[in-house]
Amino acid sequence: MMTETRYDVLGLGNAIVDVIARTEDDFLAKHKLNKGAMTLIEEARAEALFQSMGPAEIISGGCAANTASGVASLGGRAAFIGKVRQDTLGELFAQNIRAFGVDFETLPATSGPATARSFIMVTPDGERTMNTYLGACQGLGPDDVAERAVTMSAFIYLEGYLWDPPLAKEAFRKAAEIAHGAGRKVALTLSDAFCVDRYRDEFMELLRSRVVDILFANEHELKSLFTTEDFETAVAALRDMGALGVVTRGANGAMTVTREDTVAVPAFPIERLVDTTGAGDLFAGGFLFGLARGFPEKECLRLGTLAAAEVIQHIGARPQRSLKELAEQEGLAG
Amino acid sequence: MMTETRYDVLGLGNAIVDVIARTEDDFLAKHKLNKGAMTLIEEARAEALFQSMGPAEIISGGCAANTASGVASLGGRAAFIGKVRQDTLGELFAQNIRAFGVDFETLPATSGPATARSFIMVTPDGERTMNTYLGACQGLGPDDVAERAVTMSAFIYLEGYLWDPPLAKEAFRKAAEIAHGAGRKVALTLSDAFCVDRYRDEFMELLRSRVVDILFANEHELKSLFTTEDFETAVAALRDMGALGVVTRGANGAMTVTREDTVAVPAFPIERLVDTTGAGDLFAGGFLFGLARGFPEKECLRLGTLAAAEVIQHIGARPQRSLKELAEQEGLAG
Repeated sequence: MMTETRYDVLGLGNAIVDVIARTEDDFLAKHKLNKGAMTLIEEARAEALFQSMGPAEIISGGCAANTASGVASLGGRAAFIGKVRQDTLGELFAQNIRAFGVDFETLPATSGPATARSFIMVTPDGERTMNTYLGACQGLGPDDVAERAVTMSAFIYLEGYLWDPPLAKEAFRKAAEIAHGAGRKVALTLSDAFCVDRYRDEFMELLRSRVVDILFANEHELKSLFTTEDFETAVAALRDMGALGVVTRGANGAMTVTREDTVAVPAFPIERLVDTTGAGDLFAGGFLFGLARGFPEKECLRLGTLAAAEVIQHIGARPQRSLKELAEQEGLAG
Repeated sequence: MMTETRYDVLGLGNAIVDVIARTEDDFLAKHKLNKGAMTLIEEARAEALFQSMGPAEIISGGCAANTASGVASLGGRAAFIGKVRQDTLGELFAQNIRAFGVDFETLPATSGPATARSFIMVTPDGERTMNTYLGACQGLGPDDVAERAVTMSAFIYLEGYLWDPPLAKEAFRKAAEIAHGAGRKVALTLSDAFCVDRYRDEFMELLRSRVVDILFANEHELKSLFTTEDFETAVAALRDMGALGVVTRGANGAMTVTREDTVAVPAFPIERLVDTTGAGDLFAGGFLFGLARGFPEKECLRLGTLAAAEVIQHIGARPQRSLKELAEQEGLAG
């Protein structure tokens, strides 16, 4: 008999606060920043960037944490596992995610590196360029995976970024094993094309061995995974893997890809693109919320695009409006 | 001979970071918060509010600091004097204001209370309700007033809130005296109707004794100052004081009031009211920038309403777009 389902989605990921500033493209060039990508940086580089970037604001972030916040904002039940330090920014991270209604019980580190921060430059075209100091995230390990929470979650959602800290991939594998043992589904997001570059073989193996049931990727990540410049070739390769593929295409909408078929929806209309930070994370939140509620794939895709559309129209990767209300206005929350 | 003018505006005020969350009106009622006002709170109350409020973001704030940022965003030269603690939020405050191009050289406190924070609830109507823990601001005193910076500033801008910490009013009086000795002008903002209630006699005395040359007030503050419910009565009383009165009226625009005449402009058109935090501060920044550049009063008023219009269309009290570019688009920059 299956355990009671308490959560629609449990996210496991790096617990990060975003230090966000608007910037011109010149700044990226001057500081040799890799536009649109997530680059790992050390503390000294973090401090130098902080002092030279534009006026900074601090907003909670982290890929899977953003996704969990999106699920909660839609009225879903969500939990998050990730490691902060017991410090000012760690307290902000915990306050923010809990205020969204997400259960967050991972013990903060009481010593060691500070809470992780990602220095995010948002250029006038709305693109974000991330430079992440992993800090306390490096302490996330298998002991932090709360077995009971995993067994009670319809879906667990894991970020590719977990391959960066030393022990987090063990937490990932443990969570996936527990989930499958409990008859649950495991979703992975590829996170970033350069992250895929770093761990391509491992990610391919996760798909081949069916550790991953659902794969989220954008076009760049998908092409990087299958080392091709051609999107259609990448989609065909994804189809062959057997998992449920969910591909985001920015202004071109999103699609699901399975052995059986392809379902596509257009992007949700927006008034003004401000900051793409969190677009993929919120898309995944909307999609998984729909899936957990048994909605048809097309509706899951539409919930994903709706959630992404909200978050790209303001600075920061957490919803500012109730996604549940927005979904209801679109007749999607039913 | 007058000293060289290095700054258009030097702001002296409480150095505060804003901890902002969207909230429903119910929350204000439940926690007995005084809607639209600034209420002083102690540390325990601050912690309780933080844990119960909605998902929080951290954005630098502080009345005079916001004004200085606005002046800099318009292309003006600005400086700020205010006290933070040497801690994470103090570093954020310093980074943010300096990244705007504002000179900020006040030494941070190395012991004592943490950097000040204002817990700000933004309701769906765009109104903000502030609850401020003054922390390190309580250490601001006359020794922090950099004499040379004051003498080199066309205008010094002081906030009524400086009457709250124990020694800051002495810093205020010292700065005003130095400014007048150097042939400069002194501006005061009344800050908040309840702040006026606390220090009405002192503020009236500042006006009567001509310590203050320019007075910024909104309708509530003006009526509170002259203890009348009638706006026209308050305006007439202001006119009698002899200072340059600058009155903001929200959606009804703004006006200057002198013994000689009244000049009024409508509010600057906006697409959507999101968060009124900083509206008055940015208005003052635009107005003083114009005055420092010798623009006619009507143009100063228009610069004020333009700056206020930018800041109320997003969360947080610091400009997100270049006010200089916005002003140029309106043919206002010069």
